[in-house]
Amino acid sequence: MKRYDLVPISSRVFTYAQSRCNRFVTELIDFIRFPSVSAQPQHAGNLRACAAWLAEHLRQIGMEHSQVIRTEGHPLVYADWLHAVGRPTQLFYGHYDVQPPDPLEEWRSPPFEPTISGDDLYGRGASDDKGQMFAHVKAMESYLQTEGALPLNVKCIFEGEEEIGSASLIPFLSQYRRRLAADVAVMSDMPMLAPDRPALTYAMRGALSLELEVRGQKVDLHSGIFGGAVHNPIQALSEILASLHNRNGRVTIPDFYDRVRVISDEERDYLARTGPSDEEILRNARAAQGWGEPGFTLYERTTIRPALTINGMTGGYQGQGVKAVIPVRALAKINFRLVADQEPEEIDRLFRRHIKQVTPDTVRATVRTSFKARPARINHRHPAMRAAAAAYEKGFGARPVLLRSGGTIPVVSVFEEMLSVPTVLMGFALPDDRMHAPNEKFHLPNFHNAVATSIRFMKEVAGGLTNDHRLPLPRGEG
Amino acid sequence: MKRYDLVPISSRVFTYAQSRCNRFVTELIDFIRFPSVSAQPQHAGNLRACAAWLAEHLRQIGMEHSQVIRTEGHPLVYADWLHAVGRPTQLFYGHYDVQPPDPLEEWRSPPFEPTISGDDLYGRGASDDKGQMFAHVKAMESYLQTEGALPLNVKCIFEGEEEIGSASLIPFLSQYRRRLAADVAVMSDMPMLAPDRPALTYAMRGALSLELEVRGQKVDLHSGIFGGAVHNPIQALSEILASLHNRNGRVTIPDFYDRVRVISDEERDYLARTGPSDEEILRNARAAQGWGEPGFTLYERTTIRPALTINGMTGGYQGQGVKAVIPVRALAKINFRLVADQEPEEIDRLFRRHIKQVTPDTVRATVRTSFKARPARINHRHPAMRAAAAAYEKGFGARPVLLRSGGTIPVVSVFEEMLSVPTVLMGFALPDDRMHAPNEKFHLPNFHNAVATSIRFMKEVAGGLTNDHRLPLPRGEG
Repeated sequence: MKRYDLVPISSRVFTYAQSRCNRFVTELIDFIRFPSVSAQPQHAGNLRACAAWLAEHLRQIGMEHSQVIRTEGHPLVYADWLHAVGRPTQLFYGHYDVQPPDPLEEWRSPPFEPTISGDDLYGRGASDDKGQMFAHVKAMESYLQTEGALPLNVKCIFEGEEEIGSASLIPFLSQYRRRLAADVAVMSDMPMLAPDRPALTYAMRGALSLELEVRGQKVDLHSGIFGGAVHNPIQALSEILASLHNRNGRVTIPDFYDRVRVISDEERDYLARTGPSDEEILRNARAAQGWGEPGFTLYERTTIRPALTINGMTGGYQGQGVKAVIPVRALAKINFRLVADQEPEEIDRLFRRHIKQVTPDTVRATVRTSFKARPARINHRHPAMRAAAAAYEKGFGARPVLLRSGGTIPVVSVFEEMLSVPTVLMGFALPDDRMHAPNEKFHLPNFHNAVATSIRFMKEVAGGLTNDHRLPLPRGEG
Repeated sequence: MKRYDLVPISSRVFTYAQSRCNRFVTELIDFIRFPSVSAQPQHAGNLRACAAWLAEHLRQIGMEHSQVIRTEGHPLVYADWLHAVGRPTQLFYGHYDVQPPDPLEEWRSPPFEPTISGDDLYGRGASDDKGQMFAHVKAMESYLQTEGALPLNVKCIFEGEEEIGSASLIPFLSQYRRRLAADVAVMSDMPMLAPDRPALTYAMRGALSLELEVRGQKVDLHSGIFGGAVHNPIQALSEILASLHNRNGRVTIPDFYDRVRVISDEERDYLARTGPSDEEILRNARAAQGWGEPGFTLYERTTIRPALTINGMTGGYQGQGVKAVIPVRALAKINFRLVADQEPEEIDRLFRRHIKQVTPDTVRATVRTSFKARPARINHRHPAMRAAAAAYEKGFGARPVLLRSGGTIPVVSVFEEMLSVPTVLMGFALPDDRMHAPNEKFHLPNFHNAVATSIRFMKEVAGGLTNDHRLPLPRGEG
């Protein structure tokens, strides 16, 4: 790629951002207030309202062609600014949908009434992903409201279905791949290591979510009158779930590990040197003890190794007191995290085959697939990574480490495969931000530093992405 | 016991009952309409209203001293009629509380809007126990409104906590044992075999209900970021639950079977000859296949053998779609059915000891006891059983068989131990009445026949309970 003249950032841009920091937080609070829970159909109207608010906001800060794009699911929001003739184009991705807030009773403040306590802003979506994506929006505003222009061309695509598998985004990307062409994509939907330890994510796990339902007899039965004579579906489901791991915490599904890539010692050394220690991970998890596959650190178990977790289970009576019933059904929500070169389709097949084999003929098991995403790996030699490192240094006063993430952003592999755009995964959340959990928060100093980082990143990319932007990186799988 | 002169029943009594059958059903519908769900605190007011309705109804039909008795839990209803000088005293027991109606979405008509379809009346409590106990109330009415008197002395005690362990009734019985003295108690809260196969229950299982909660890390975690590094509480609970039975369906808790009494071959022959076959039980359960302890029929597995069933399990996300979470806790509701000579206290101890042994140190398990009742056995040689057989013959046109029941009525063993009153367990429900399940019903022809049976039973008992009232019975345990 051609190297452009360095584009200076006037200090006005940073000063604008610094002096507007309170208003930015007030606007972020308005954004979080929408209960844009994509998994729950009753919230569809809230997602539409949130998308409309976001599109209007982008228009107000000076972005162009800002619009809500209807899909078969929740809408997309698109905006652009394309007047930096001859300069690179940057694609911003984020998502305005959020996880369900359940269990509600464990929130100390209501999930959709954002509340500031100390340096933190509490609310569902505060860090995942409204706060992180909004930092980029405020960076754009800071340029547009001071310079009247961005230093490079920008396209924004914000979706409302990240938490449920990006089903509408993927065909949209495919249809408009030409119009979405860019030199680099950036997304911020992941943690750093600590407020002074920024991190660039270079690999994410894939995901496969399934529902496993076990049904027994056709009607609920009195557990006194029939207890001991039929195979209770809750018991049968427990027995099946218990069979999915061995005592050491390894997944027992035959052939499950067959395609798991062996990571080089060099990369494992890098992970050990730069990544979180077991103690840090346990502290962030607020867990007394680790668990899992022998021979790997906790950081490795959550990044270079696949995992199977049960996200939910339900069956029978769950109210107060006692109900003596043998229910007709029990259901578990199962979530795989996959690593290269595991393919969600193949794991889906292996899981179904295994369930068929272990289900006794006293009950019937049904598997439904809800979500699939391939593992993703960013080309860490891409010069955009060095631009991101320089930007972090400006925003957070520290060079980033390169991280693997255990999480999944379905669109990362899609950007790479469909648009041939390298993606910079620039995390602004903290490991204890409780993404997906009650009392999710966003650390406000990180929000403000993120705005500065994004301002700087646009300027770095505007200067062109050349090979001297390369960062020394672990040699890895690729 | 002294033999009294036979007390004739004027045909007016039966005629009254027959000609009022429609009104009786209308009143039963009013009774079922109260959502008297004892397990759920929000229904406390409905239990009070239901008790008040019942006490007023007893007063209106001519019973005396009818009153609602406040307790620490849900109220008791008491009434009596004590003018049959020199004649025996019969104690009627029933319960006006009902099971929770969950899962609501599986009801074809609302559980507390009783609905007639064909010969059946649908509603929560239709058979368990409002319909069955109300048949006795209507039998009392039929005497009082035609003869102006009952053929014997009657005391009624109807409770509102049968479904949650009869905690208030037991101290009440102890306090008023003298005033509740009777020659025989009768309760109808169990099934017959079929509309033309009445049954007297002579043994019931005991019960022990517990909650088992497993907790892991202190906050909900993102299952992408942390999956593979901590022991998921749902998984750990599944593993513990799966360890409670072996492959054959036997309970694996050490010493669990130690005190289970061996039943004589003679009694097992009687059970095989008179009780429901495996096919009948599976048909009533609407189950394709049986399950459980080898070496016993399904009838035996549910009556002379103990059972452990899981009534409910809950953990993590249960809404629509996907939520990638590792929850802090998972909970199971566990229900034992016990047989002589198992003691609930001892099984509680064995269970807790076992849970302590099988819980891995990656999670913490807590056990809470919710409900205890001892197994009960009726003296089947008591002449009241023969009186009941004669009454069934009048009401249903067939002699009853003697049944063991897998269910539990805590008060049965208490009546025997505390009041030294033999209890006649006269079932009017059908095996497919879905007691405790959605679409519970009561077969209306059984309701009407039950009124006639109760009319006749009072007359038989009024004539005195002598040894020639003995029924040929299986020799059993005692």
